[in-house]
Amino acid sequence: MVETVKRLAILGSTGSIGRQTLDIVRAMPERFKVVGLAAGKNIDLLAQQVDEFRPEFICCSPATNQENDKRAGLTSAGGTFGSLEDMACHPDVDMVVIATSGTAGLSATLAAVKAGKNIALANKESLVAAGGIITAAAGKSGARILPVDSEHSAIWQCLNGEKQGVRQIILTASGGPFRDYSEAEMREVTAGQALKHPSWRMGKKVTIDSATLMNKGLEVIEAHWLFSMPFDDIRVLLHPQSIVHSMVEFIDGSVKAQLSYPDMRLPIQYALCYPDRVANPDLPVIDFGSLEQLTFEHPDPVKFPCLRLAVEAGRNGGTCPAVLCAADEAAVDLFLAGRIRFTDIARLVERVLEEHEKIAHPDMEEIIAVGDRARERVLELAALDNR
Amino acid sequence: MVETVKRLAILGSTGSIGRQTLDIVRAMPERFKVVGLAAGKNIDLLAQQVDEFRPEFICCSPATNQENDKRAGLTSAGGTFGSLEDMACHPDVDMVVIATSGTAGLSATLAAVKAGKNIALANKESLVAAGGIITAAAGKSGARILPVDSEHSAIWQCLNGEKQGVRQIILTASGGPFRDYSEAEMREVTAGQALKHPSWRMGKKVTIDSATLMNKGLEVIEAHWLFSMPFDDIRVLLHPQSIVHSMVEFIDGSVKAQLSYPDMRLPIQYALCYPDRVANPDLPVIDFGSLEQLTFEHPDPVKFPCLRLAVEAGRNGGTCPAVLCAADEAAVDLFLAGRIRFTDIARLVERVLEEHEKIAHPDMEEIIAVGDRARERVLELAALDNR
Repeated sequence: MVETVKRLAILGSTGSIGRQTLDIVRAMPERFKVVGLAAGKNIDLLAQQVDEFRPEFICCSPATNQENDKRAGLTSAGGTFGSLEDMACHPDVDMVVIATSGTAGLSATLAAVKAGKNIALANKESLVAAGGIITAAAGKSGARILPVDSEHSAIWQCLNGEKQGVRQIILTASGGPFRDYSEAEMREVTAGQALKHPSWRMGKKVTIDSATLMNKGLEVIEAHWLFSMPFDDIRVLLHPQSIVHSMVEFIDGSVKAQLSYPDMRLPIQYALCYPDRVANPDLPVIDFGSLEQLTFEHPDPVKFPCLRLAVEAGRNGGTCPAVLCAADEAAVDLFLAGRIRFTDIARLVERVLEEHEKIAHPDMEEIIAVGDRARERVLELAALDNR
Repeated sequence: MVETVKRLAILGSTGSIGRQTLDIVRAMPERFKVVGLAAGKNIDLLAQQVDEFRPEFICCSPATNQENDKRAGLTSAGGTFGSLEDMACHPDVDMVVIATSGTAGLSATLAAVKAGKNIALANKESLVAAGGIITAAAGKSGARILPVDSEHSAIWQCLNGEKQGVRQIILTASGGPFRDYSEAEMREVTAGQALKHPSWRMGKKVTIDSATLMNKGLEVIEAHWLFSMPFDDIRVLLHPQSIVHSMVEFIDGSVKAQLSYPDMRLPIQYALCYPDRVANPDLPVIDFGSLEQLTFEHPDPVKFPCLRLAVEAGRNGGTCPAVLCAADEAAVDLFLAGRIRFTDIARLVERVLEEHEKIAHPDMEEIIAVGDRARERVLELAALDNR
């Protein structure tokens, strides 16, 4: 029996995670009501979603003249427009799904947490750039931060019912498409190659971040905030098959792991339905008889400098992770545009981090400002290189 | 901080599990006090244990004349003698560790549970032969049955904090030394070969049962009682590396697994310390960098008929599992004595089960009686074969 319907605001509803969140809502209409949908530029898909889910509130990016007509069409479905922040804090919303990409949802995330809303967090940048601020606000308001990433969901599931005795968290990483490449081969990698992830289908930014292992480094910082774990007690293991999504090692030597085929709908559903587990025939079940072998290996720190850079930025704290995040965002854009090499991503991020003068206890404005400056600096450095 | 000392009675203290239980007690003297030790025929080792742990109560098998002197020596340490049942119910005992082999501890297990004592259960036969009686008694008295087997401990750990939503339990089995043998090769197997288990060091009976997969079949029946799972929702997977000790699959497709090197001290400690996890430097930690690949496969039902026989006996219920247990005990003894072939174990057990007229709701006396009769019948059938 479902006692109450959870009323959701979905920030980033037209992206990969947003669309899969709506798949879960479709599969269990008795559990969820969509009261808010927010998207960036994909107005056509947003319009379809508004038509299907009839949310009370709609939010989309500032429209161009050409798009004004489409926006006008959205309101005919009965929804009212508002800012991301307004939607995230609205009293009719029980849970905010943060599925925006990049730093776009930072302020809305903080607003939701301050308003005491539970958030299902798929956006990496929020906790990486502003983990201290967001977790402090959640501590004060009683908001819960429920991870949607497969790795953090795995850890969360493994920690279920375990009151104490955690020795370390082990984040697994597929290692991306270049796990077996030499350093020389890595230099020649094209965007097309980097976008072919061996096990997960995801957005472009996170796919490139998976290939550099920056994604795993960002997840280490997130795990630090989500589970209050010191950086010394968070490890990364390569696991090319992407079946074991992460593990927890306890002080008695016991290890608990969470396994499934790579499918983001499981961690999305787990966060949405928590604390219930709900049957969903759409979700695949592991066929252990046909499963290939599971292997684990330590990542090569020389081949994957982004992992080291991220963990160092996390340890340094203050504004360093925000700079890491923003510099990586800009560098990945340049790589996808064919303007820098794959190995330049780490080089540019490292350079910008070295130049950065850390603010130890930044506020949200400072975090956003250092991010903007880091993005500019990546462009400047790349332009200098190309002269 | 340890709030109270747990006072233990260890039934079967000189066997493999009993000795490892005392290893855990030695490693954390602030948590445990041994108030009772019971052993079978190994009076010399029992005397050493009595000397070290100074229990209040001692129990050993009826002595031969020659051993009377040794028994007399035991009392000089200050302990008093009593029956297994008296020790299991004694008001000074908080937890009873049932590490006896075979059906020897059946009555004592029931007595402990009736007296409301939590039991750490390493003995397979108790729940297999008398699961209905013991779990009903535990439900009435409030006694907890804490599994000590690595597989059931793994499931118990994976179920921690999970209130609902279990789809199935997946018991892993190494597959023993004959996993890759042909049926013809299995016929020629010697006791020496069968006693070489690839990953676990255990007593002789359980090692042979591991080679036939009877052990896994008995564990299916135990899992049925321990976790109130229907037989249809308990699966067995071969996992030759013995790292994943068992798994739980949930209705959302998520699977949780517990991993460690094969070492019985972990499940023993987990049951003894529950609900705490306690650091123990003696317990090994998995080195994932050097871990071999993990593989899984379905067991071949034709090559391992004992697995099928056990699950069928479990489904049939009543006195059938008690007959299975006792017939297997007798058949394994004959095989170890070189008097029957390896493949005769399953054949004899099946024959005795076929002949058995089930009692649907037996009491403990009937369970013990059908077991005695099954053992006799195995000897009779084997003698007929050898004429």
